[in-house]
Amino acid sequence: MNTKINKDTTICMSLAARPTNFGTRFHNYLYDALDLNYLYKAFTSKDLAGVIAGVRALNFRGCAISMPFKEEVIALVDELDPSAAAINSVNTIVNTDGHLKAYNTDYIAISTLLTQYAIPTDFSFSLKGSGGMAKAVACALRDLGFTNGVIVGRNEASGRALADLCGFKWQTDMSGIEADLLINATPLGMSGGIEEGKLCFCEHEIEHAQVLFDVVAIPAVTPAVQFAKSINKSVITGSEVFAIQAVEQFQLYTGIKPSQELFEQAAAYSRSES
Amino acid sequence: MNTKINKDTTICMSLAARPTNFGTRFHNYLYDALDLNYLYKAFTSKDLAGVIAGVRALNFRGCAISMPFKEEVIALVDELDPSAAAINSVNTIVNTDGHLKAYNTDYIAISTLLTQYAIPTDFSFSLKGSGGMAKAVACALRDLGFTNGVIVGRNEASGRALADLCGFKWQTDMSGIEADLLINATPLGMSGGIEEGKLCFCEHEIEHAQVLFDVVAIPAVTPAVQFAKSINKSVITGSEVFAIQAVEQFQLYTGIKPSQELFEQAAAYSRSES
Repeated sequence: MNTKINKDTTICMSLAARPTNFGTRFHNYLYDALDLNYLYKAFTSKDLAGVIAGVRALNFRGCAISMPFKEEVIALVDELDPSAAAINSVNTIVNTDGHLKAYNTDYIAISTLLTQYAIPTDFSFSLKGSGGMAKAVACALRDLGFTNGVIVGRNEASGRALADLCGFKWQTDMSGIEADLLINATPLGMSGGIEEGKLCFCEHEIEHAQVLFDVVAIPAVTPAVQFAKSINKSVITGSEVFAIQAVEQFQLYTGIKPSQELFEQAAAYSRSES
Repeated sequence: MNTKINKDTTICMSLAARPTNFGTRFHNYLYDALDLNYLYKAFTSKDLAGVIAGVRALNFRGCAISMPFKEEVIALVDELDPSAAAINSVNTIVNTDGHLKAYNTDYIAISTLLTQYAIPTDFSFSLKGSGGMAKAVACALRDLGFTNGVIVGRNEASGRALADLCGFKWQTDMSGIEADLLINATPLGMSGGIEEGKLCFCEHEIEHAQVLFDVVAIPAVTPAVQFAKSINKSVITGSEVFAIQAVEQFQLYTGIKPSQELFEQAAAYSRSES
């Protein structure tokens, strides 16, 4: 039933080139469970400025920002939280009485996990990827004090740029690298992608590492995570990144932090539809 | 439950300075009953251009326009339907693949009712009011061929302007007028207003008329309608105007015409919350 919606319902939205139903299901499930008069809807658009004009004019409370709008949107908001300023990339906008403040809850989630798992900052690391999520990881590592790392990726322009931004090295592949901490921020092993079922690092690399951090969230257990667990390595998963960033976002929009149990129900519900 | 909403849900909205819950409840009730993946939400805003930018960027299917935006919005749409062009006033925008076409379903409803009730065009008439709804009525009367009428209202500027637009006379009050058709397009007799419970025309005037057309929709039976019925006069009510314009709007957005029975359920549901 839509019929609980009324003129006072608070609207939150997401914007992506290729939207999924995950966020819509996740947030609406929690709104229902917590009896909040909120509504969440995913949108796509080719007109970012028009979307932000609409967010302002219609007084939407929140707007999640996905690819390819995360950097372009910076010029359209009123204030950058340090989490967005640190990586020059936005994934969450909060509208408070017409003032738009932009955050990056991926950066917040990754920093939180590296701290919670107490990964020593003198660990050597190897980070695969040079896209938006890799940037959030690299900047979080830099800001936590990690110095001994390599960005690994075939795209020299973006790989070198990210390495230079954070003071790390760059190389095209893993040849010659043995790292304590392996981090995957590429789609390797992601469900539904062309690299589904693949290991993001080879078995040999995982055997020589101490920690695997796989940012891929779907499936909850990627091939690399499964292998690393089977040989008793420490593992941080993309599901954990998603959980923290999503709860952070939910809290920014509503002021309410769902319990762990409720979060897990909402996440399971969200995953239950492809 | 909001949880049926997904990324593909089609959004319709309304814009008004002082929104009510009526449209939101009416449309969402019908969407649920007809199992349409649509969602309706009333908004207010001070930024009309921003709202229309948002309607375009987020690809909302429909946007109802209320006071005070009905004329200002004309400059922001791509095409005027004859119903909106006839009175230079918009209450409905339909977005088809980014092309915004504007309608006036009040004008459509009033024209339809005057035709359905076969009111002779040589009837003399007296029309109270000179606001947006009065303009819809006056232009409908003009376009159907009525010529012998008086616009009655205390506001000389708007009253004379409307009379001149349609080729009718204007005077401040009913003194000296005996008309076959009496039409009220003011808030006289409307629930919740300062003129609740009042007759929009006096008993003597109604006794001498043949038809009373009261555009006030809430209450469904206004004091004047009640009196006119009690002395067996023909009556056209604001509820009928609302029904036709709302169904027209619903059909423009969805392509579906609800049955009379379903319409009445939705209207009753919408009225059940103040």
